[in-house]
Amino acid sequence: MPKDIPVTKQVPASDLTTCEATRQMLEKARKDGVVLNLDRAVDMKPCPIGVESACCKHCFMGPCRINPRDPYKKVGICGATIDTITARNLARNVATGSASHNDHGQHILHLFKGIIEKSVTDFSIADTRKLQNLATELGIDTEDRSVEDVAKDLCDELEKTFSNVDGEMPFMKRVPAATLELWRKDGIVPRGAMKEVMEMMSRTHIGCDQDYNHLMKQISRTALADGWGGSMVATELSDIMFGTPSPIVAEVNMGVLKEDHVNVIVHGHEPAMFEGMLAGVNDPFFIQAAKDKGAAGINLVGMCCSGAEMMSRHGIPHAGNFSSTEAVLVTGAVDAMVVDIQCIKQGLAQVAKCYDTHLITTSDRAHIEGATHIQFDETDPRTCTDEVLIKAISRFGSRSQPIQIPNQVQKGIQGFSHEYIEYMLGGTFRGSYSPLNDNIINGRIRGVAGVVGCTNPKVKQDYVHVELVRELIKNDVLVLQTGCSQIALSKAGFLTPEAAALAGPGLSEVCETVGMPPVLGLGSCVDNTRILIAASAMVKAGGLGNSIADLPAAGCAPEWMSEKALAIGQYFVSSGVYTVFGVGFPALSGTRFHDLLFNGLEQQGYGKWGMAKDPIEIARLMIDHIDKKRSQLGIDKARERVLVDMNDRRALA
Amino acid sequence: MPKDIPVTKQVPASDLTTCEATRQMLEKARKDGVVLNLDRAVDMKPCPIGVESACCKHCFMGPCRINPRDPYKKVGICGATIDTITARNLARNVATGSASHNDHGQHILHLFKGIIEKSVTDFSIADTRKLQNLATELGIDTEDRSVEDVAKDLCDELEKTFSNVDGEMPFMKRVPAATLELWRKDGIVPRGAMKEVMEMMSRTHIGCDQDYNHLMKQISRTALADGWGGSMVATELSDIMFGTPSPIVAEVNMGVLKEDHVNVIVHGHEPAMFEGMLAGVNDPFFIQAAKDKGAAGINLVGMCCSGAEMMSRHGIPHAGNFSSTEAVLVTGAVDAMVVDIQCIKQGLAQVAKCYDTHLITTSDRAHIEGATHIQFDETDPRTCTDEVLIKAISRFGSRSQPIQIPNQVQKGIQGFSHEYIEYMLGGTFRGSYSPLNDNIINGRIRGVAGVVGCTNPKVKQDYVHVELVRELIKNDVLVLQTGCSQIALSKAGFLTPEAAALAGPGLSEVCETVGMPPVLGLGSCVDNTRILIAASAMVKAGGLGNSIADLPAAGCAPEWMSEKALAIGQYFVSSGVYTVFGVGFPALSGTRFHDLLFNGLEQQGYGKWGMAKDPIEIARLMIDHIDKKRSQLGIDKARERVLVDMNDRRALA
Repeated sequence: MPKDIPVTKQVPASDLTTCEATRQMLEKARKDGVVLNLDRAVDMKPCPIGVESACCKHCFMGPCRINPRDPYKKVGICGATIDTITARNLARNVATGSASHNDHGQHILHLFKGIIEKSVTDFSIADTRKLQNLATELGIDTEDRSVEDVAKDLCDELEKTFSNVDGEMPFMKRVPAATLELWRKDGIVPRGAMKEVMEMMSRTHIGCDQDYNHLMKQISRTALADGWGGSMVATELSDIMFGTPSPIVAEVNMGVLKEDHVNVIVHGHEPAMFEGMLAGVNDPFFIQAAKDKGAAGINLVGMCCSGAEMMSRHGIPHAGNFSSTEAVLVTGAVDAMVVDIQCIKQGLAQVAKCYDTHLITTSDRAHIEGATHIQFDETDPRTCTDEVLIKAISRFGSRSQPIQIPNQVQKGIQGFSHEYIEYMLGGTFRGSYSPLNDNIINGRIRGVAGVVGCTNPKVKQDYVHVELVRELIKNDVLVLQTGCSQIALSKAGFLTPEAAALAGPGLSEVCETVGMPPVLGLGSCVDNTRILIAASAMVKAGGLGNSIADLPAAGCAPEWMSEKALAIGQYFVSSGVYTVFGVGFPALSGTRFHDLLFNGLEQQGYGKWGMAKDPIEIARLMIDHIDKKRSQLGIDKARERVLVDMNDRRALA
Repeated sequence: MPKDIPVTKQVPASDLTTCEATRQMLEKARKDGVVLNLDRAVDMKPCPIGVESACCKHCFMGPCRINPRDPYKKVGICGATIDTITARNLARNVATGSASHNDHGQHILHLFKGIIEKSVTDFSIADTRKLQNLATELGIDTEDRSVEDVAKDLCDELEKTFSNVDGEMPFMKRVPAATLELWRKDGIVPRGAMKEVMEMMSRTHIGCDQDYNHLMKQISRTALADGWGGSMVATELSDIMFGTPSPIVAEVNMGVLKEDHVNVIVHGHEPAMFEGMLAGVNDPFFIQAAKDKGAAGINLVGMCCSGAEMMSRHGIPHAGNFSSTEAVLVTGAVDAMVVDIQCIKQGLAQVAKCYDTHLITTSDRAHIEGATHIQFDETDPRTCTDEVLIKAISRFGSRSQPIQIPNQVQKGIQGFSHEYIEYMLGGTFRGSYSPLNDNIINGRIRGVAGVVGCTNPKVKQDYVHVELVRELIKNDVLVLQTGCSQIALSKAGFLTPEAAALAGPGLSEVCETVGMPPVLGLGSCVDNTRILIAASAMVKAGGLGNSIADLPAAGCAPEWMSEKALAIGQYFVSSGVYTVFGVGFPALSGTRFHDLLFNGLEQQGYGKWGMAKDPIEIARLMIDHIDKKRSQLGIDKARERVLVDMNDRRALA
């Protein structure tokens, strides 16, 4: 086995993760002389200036550095203040996140177009009802028209999401009137996603936009072009093509790997290749080929976000979230890991090499040095997926590594699309968000929280996710989840109706009545748009104010790490949601730009940012906000219970 | 006068600039207690890791830092190597530069559209001949059609430059066949600029594209979408709307300011507002208003790149380049500085405040804290420009500062569009690049060099520009210039026919025959596309190979600082040009990515990057490359003179 360069310092594996499977594999990797990302994180001292977003590399006069302890003492060589520097840095983060989701959305649209134009024949329109509903919502005539004709018009309309250079994006039709009015007043209604990203980058060039308040507007616009743009296109068209999720039981954690099967993990963000793999592994030819090599069958497993989508739509088992993708290879049981785009660590190449696993890249936008590239082409998916399976089966036949699969596995209910939530709460004949609103108004449900986002090796894996959600549901806050956070809570057993026992009396009563878990999994990180749609539906259902900002709701990404998370956070904030990030935030507390983000935006009618590291403290911030909104709505009287406050809780701990 | 925070260390002003006017103003600013960018640059220690592009802020697991002295000892937390990190950093630089020029080009196109649709009435189509030629070149039928109809089709065609999501950009029709064939083979033909920028950003997200060779392709594509995309649209349509430059005498340096006039400086990059100002200052109403305040008139002056454009088209005087924009305010004579986008230092706000000058922003993409914003609207330009003039005239009437205008001023010939070069060398009746090629083949002209780009306070202002060009022309290399470099050489008196005396015998002979300077000024930094067009025309004229890479030519940005410069450099490299940067380069020597940029690309048939700080060394690199190309073309025998080599030269010095 090739050896890694060893790290120079190490902490106990149990300090790095609360995921037992990941801990076991980290211990094994150490014994094997293999270095995983969790250990690299301990070994890497983050730049103390960069982490505060107090440096600027936007031109070659610098890089300029501002002292985070005295940020107004100096300006950059061009004269940029700490506020300009930080705003521009955040602008590029958000532009990257928005570009990532819009790139994803544009490819989904391209696939949809291929189906309509019949260049793509291996995929089809699965949910014609959703197609019709969406078309109607966007003002497309559907009466007496064929699915193909409606789909063609929908495709043309959604193309504007990316290509428009003026006007308003199609999905602005979904935004609650008061929210949209605010955006129009401030000039932040997104035009087209490519335009917003390009203009954001242009405005962060040396000597261009240098007023943090003005930069903030384009930051918001670029983020909204993600949430109400490419991400929403991705979610909605993926549902139309691959099926709108409804609750389904799925298994999560590394125990889903099977020693006697050919194990193929798909990890990434786009559903198309994964859907293609699903067709491949069900081909009797490959099942027989696997059996010929002595395998009991082929075991297709997801990780990360495309995994969350496939779990939601088809109940495909899920092996773990971002911080476990290297660790899972240490099992030796993975015959091939197939990846597409985003959050695929380059370190996987080395770990895969150590454990003789095929690491296979499939997207022309993401190659990895040391991986095998097999291009996935949606017009001919099988050429790629067959080649992957041949490699995986062959590797099974010549497995050279000892196999050690942690026996952790947890069942949970996944697949709560916003359509299903509406149906579930509103009944068979007339789906509606009114019963949810009613339960919020009457106080059984205190409010709604979105808990989402990455895992980050700066904090103990899954710990903040789980403890935060535990605290929220205990306080009758219904939790909606996506992405790696949803996987963390799935592993911890919270996505089951039985978890209602962990909820406060009000939420628990609702859960038991409806038969739902207190924590609803909505899918991948691109599916955060389901939360936007649900929030808009709640506003439209009435009784909870006029805009998303009025709702007793809050969001959190407790272990975030990616620029997509910053784009998502910003589109929630700009949509009216109080959004708390854990780990840290790339803006210096005490600066004017930080104050704008964490305070000023709310005064302008938006949501705002919050930051705390401790899960109980995050919960308190979110609950306080929810209670503030309840009070503003005049529904605070409905809740009588006195809650134990944070200090009391800490005294108990 | 408000005082700045003083800098903690200082060097003699003459160490910072070779521009006497700027030196005088820097000395005065120091006496006045005002801090200029030149002094801030000495005071700011650049980050030693960031300057080598060895840190990564692309996710919040870090920021990760690699030791530049041992770059392969460690990888980032995600496993990104130094090659991935540096390639991604350069990718974002190039994306920003390309976004900046494409944003500019898109606004020029929007203005052109406004003229066609008659929503814009203050501007018009000035060069119908160029319109017809360009339309014909792009395959648009022009026979028996009105200017308006042709313009409409041209507008629709050029819109694809920005909006296309597949196919090839319109200006690919101009690329020499062999060059385009290489791009097609490598899959780097740009589709649409917005698409390339967005995809580049998406691919630099954590865990996406992590193979520096593969990233390099999209870096090239994104850069080509600048040079052959938005920049070319900007140059060509600006010529069509405002007139194609032909040689004109203009004055350069701070001496163009007039103590007894209302002085208005326009500084930035887009020509529209500046053209609008030109109309305003010629309005008898404002001339009278100025006289009523005791002024002899209104003196409209340019700086930076829009200044270079207005100088080229209309002979508008130019007060100096990037490093002098703060210094010029120290004269006290500037009644208003009006700016639009890019390279406008935030520090101007403080200096303007100290000298009671109006700093006025006019673009909705670039506000500056502390400046007055007066939005420029192309459908109603006078509302903005009138308000600027009212403020400037009023400030003249109540000037409170002592005026001190350096008496440096230099006349030069500006305005060498590629059309004019063709005409000048080819004769009245049949413009052609053949005579230029002939003079290269016969050895009178050794080769062609583009010397362009910013000034950077890390090096003594203008010094590297001037000494490099001096050395190049001495060695019979014809120099084409744009942007701040062109201003440096103009100030030094090289843009005159008399400067032919400084050229080697061959070049000097050609200059004297044609009556041209040995250094030709082509305009602003966006006008670098004129060099691409000229290079393509040289290939098509025959005798100098089949692709741009075959030409005995080289480029240099000796004092670069901006991300636009990196985008420009990369589009020259990807187009086949050896491009040397001074100051430094954001890639670590000895890494594989650095080797790809500085060596590997050339082996693939592209140009390549070079880097040197000393002007004589840069000249030697460029001349060696030109000689290598001459040798490959078999035309090296035509030149017999033995040249003094660098060591001899140094021995003499």
